[in-house]
Amino acid sequence: MTKQLKPSNPSRRHLLTGGAVALAAGGMAGISKSALAQAAASVVPAAAKPLPAYVAWKDPTAMIVHTSSTLETKRSAFGTSVITPAEQLYIRNNLPAPDASIIADRDAWEVQIEGVKNPRNFNLKQLKGMGLETTAMVLQCSGNGRGLFPTKASGTAWAVGAAGCVVWSGVPVRDVVAALGGVADGMVYMTGTGGEKIPEGLDPKSVMVERSVPLKAMGDALLAWEMNGAPIPLAHGGPLRLIVPGYAGVNNVKYIKRLAFTLAQTEAAIQKTGYRLSPPGQKGDPSHPAVWEMAAKSWINSPAPDAGVVPAGMSLIKGVAFGGMQALKAVEVSIDGGASWLAAKFVGPDLGRYAWRQFVLSVKLAPGNYTIASRAIDVLGNLQSEVSMENTGGYNNTSWRDHALKISVV
Amino acid sequence: MTKQLKPSNPSRRHLLTGGAVALAAGGMAGISKSALAQAAASVVPAAAKPLPAYVAWKDPTAMIVHTSSTLETKRSAFGTSVITPAEQLYIRNNLPAPDASIIADRDAWEVQIEGVKNPRNFNLKQLKGMGLETTAMVLQCSGNGRGLFPTKASGTAWAVGAAGCVVWSGVPVRDVVAALGGVADGMVYMTGTGGEKIPEGLDPKSVMVERSVPLKAMGDALLAWEMNGAPIPLAHGGPLRLIVPGYAGVNNVKYIKRLAFTLAQTEAAIQKTGYRLSPPGQKGDPSHPAVWEMAAKSWINSPAPDAGVVPAGMSLIKGVAFGGMQALKAVEVSIDGGASWLAAKFVGPDLGRYAWRQFVLSVKLAPGNYTIASRAIDVLGNLQSEVSMENTGGYNNTSWRDHALKISVV
Repeated sequence: MTKQLKPSNPSRRHLLTGGAVALAAGGMAGISKSALAQAAASVVPAAAKPLPAYVAWKDPTAMIVHTSSTLETKRSAFGTSVITPAEQLYIRNNLPAPDASIIADRDAWEVQIEGVKNPRNFNLKQLKGMGLETTAMVLQCSGNGRGLFPTKASGTAWAVGAAGCVVWSGVPVRDVVAALGGVADGMVYMTGTGGEKIPEGLDPKSVMVERSVPLKAMGDALLAWEMNGAPIPLAHGGPLRLIVPGYAGVNNVKYIKRLAFTLAQTEAAIQKTGYRLSPPGQKGDPSHPAVWEMAAKSWINSPAPDAGVVPAGMSLIKGVAFGGMQALKAVEVSIDGGASWLAAKFVGPDLGRYAWRQFVLSVKLAPGNYTIASRAIDVLGNLQSEVSMENTGGYNNTSWRDHALKISVV
Repeated sequence: MTKQLKPSNPSRRHLLTGGAVALAAGGMAGISKSALAQAAASVVPAAAKPLPAYVAWKDPTAMIVHTSSTLETKRSAFGTSVITPAEQLYIRNNLPAPDASIIADRDAWEVQIEGVKNPRNFNLKQLKGMGLETTAMVLQCSGNGRGLFPTKASGTAWAVGAAGCVVWSGVPVRDVVAALGGVADGMVYMTGTGGEKIPEGLDPKSVMVERSVPLKAMGDALLAWEMNGAPIPLAHGGPLRLIVPGYAGVNNVKYIKRLAFTLAQTEAAIQKTGYRLSPPGQKGDPSHPAVWEMAAKSWINSPAPDAGVVPAGMSLIKGVAFGGMQALKAVEVSIDGGASWLAAKFVGPDLGRYAWRQFVLSVKLAPGNYTIASRAIDVLGNLQSEVSMENTGGYNNTSWRDHALKISVV
């Protein structure tokens, strides 16, 4: 697993271009270590915004605050213990979180189940007695990686940190549906409605969080009340959240107050025109694919995702990889920008097909410049794509090339 | 899995005796629901102590504060997401935690490796480049369950909450040792020394945290810097902790500053006379077995571990189970005090042989009194014991009978 490897392309270009790391250094051949460190330090970030009050419990050293409703995990903050702790997990809320009073008595939260043979309400206390499943899952914002696309798309310029691997506990939706006589005849979608307050004066359809996913997604879906061993925090959708393993973040409806099996997709804008894979410059409409299932993806978190400067010698390249809907077969790492690939080693427990795996590759690096990348391969043989289809919303960026890191070994 | 079951023993005795739940109610046959609730509420706990300042970040609603160095997770607070979050994890410190300055620059922390062919120091930054492993593990205080022994032993009267399932990341000790030429000839123990400050005026040997475990424990041991995806909190042994999977808590030395392979066990009191399985009334000495490997154990956390009153009808009995050194084969649940047993179902991902598994059994309960218990069976066929050997220190209580819950179904 340990190899002495040569730099991929010791030209200046790698240092001046590329998304995640761009060092404003000159020709690297004879540059001193201190000069490099200085160059790295000169990439001064804008003054960090403080954590919004409703997530003041997050770890400020781990988070990038884009806005009060969009917080990203720093690439350098991802740990290697598989699970992303709540304090480090990203936030992306389409509407402000409801008032904290809804978690004062969690068990009283009610959800209406419709589109089944015998529709009815359940409160959370009742749901807790109906079944239990625990699923580890990559929760990933549809726009994660948006900021790494070659062409700028509108929306938060997430790098890799609008994702985490979290454990959910709740009752399987299939158990709830079975208790109500099954899905009503002919239904095609599972539609979840969030409990956010609709700002006054607006057409609810224009802002409400209501998402439809194909009926088959019910198979592994949960009505979840727990995240990483604790009641789901308000900011992450507590007291009750719809969890649709393998589906992009937006489909995992927070504060779920209605779960309906429906003939058609919801008319809410977030479904009808939003979260659609429309060609660049074109507004989304129902003819464009919805952002649903996630695809195979991986990225490297270490070494030096921020500074880009690594000391020569042995180095452990570490990252995370997941298959979206499938378990992974392998992860490969390249240190020459994709010209050649080496098999990385999986590390740590396998938490199931919806979770991510950690990978590591030990390499001996000589001084020079490297483009290090990773690519995931799922059990069906699907390979993480080199290039992702650009789209107006900047969704579903799984390109290994966009996620590559430029590092300078000195 | 769902069965209609009769109460085990609807006598008064079950309500007036037993450790975890003792309702001060009268004859139960015709008692009303409100009377029962009142009886349960009348078991008023002493005013809760506030969280000590160094663990002010813990969840106060999940913790029982025994003293500033002993905090227990409430039985009702254990979640069902396998992992115990840091905010809910118990604390048991033999000495006060060192000053927080030691985590200001985590990478600078040094550990001396001795008893190898080529002894030397490593700092944490160096260790991070030497290897990576991630292990999910039950961390359990040696005295967990002490308060449930039929006879009172000295020490904190832990019920079930001096335990949690946590994920550690670090470098395998075997990799570090291999890099130093291997263990020196003839060594028999792995001895770790903690970095706590020794109070002035005391003989260091009388209070220092230094533990020896058999050399074979090196196989899966880690020098760990991360817990549950974040740098190890100071209170839990950060920046660097020795992790010995399967071994009771005290062997997982916090703030490790020296890891030595030795011919003999340390002379520190915590090893020589402390944490020994000595007969009741007899002080520990090296002739008594040391508290090292954990044995198979399980307990029920739901329903109603505190109040003991459960509504009639369908109920999910939920708990956790682990094998200590071995993976589990099965868990059984009894609702009649051990007269008969039913197979429970494992729920959630299997995080490996040192982690715990969640189990669940769906039962329909008629009104009456029940003694519900669980017992774990490991892959070697070892059955969790009905009775644990009492000992002066109150260690290693794995008795399923002591961990049974008395509930009243109304």
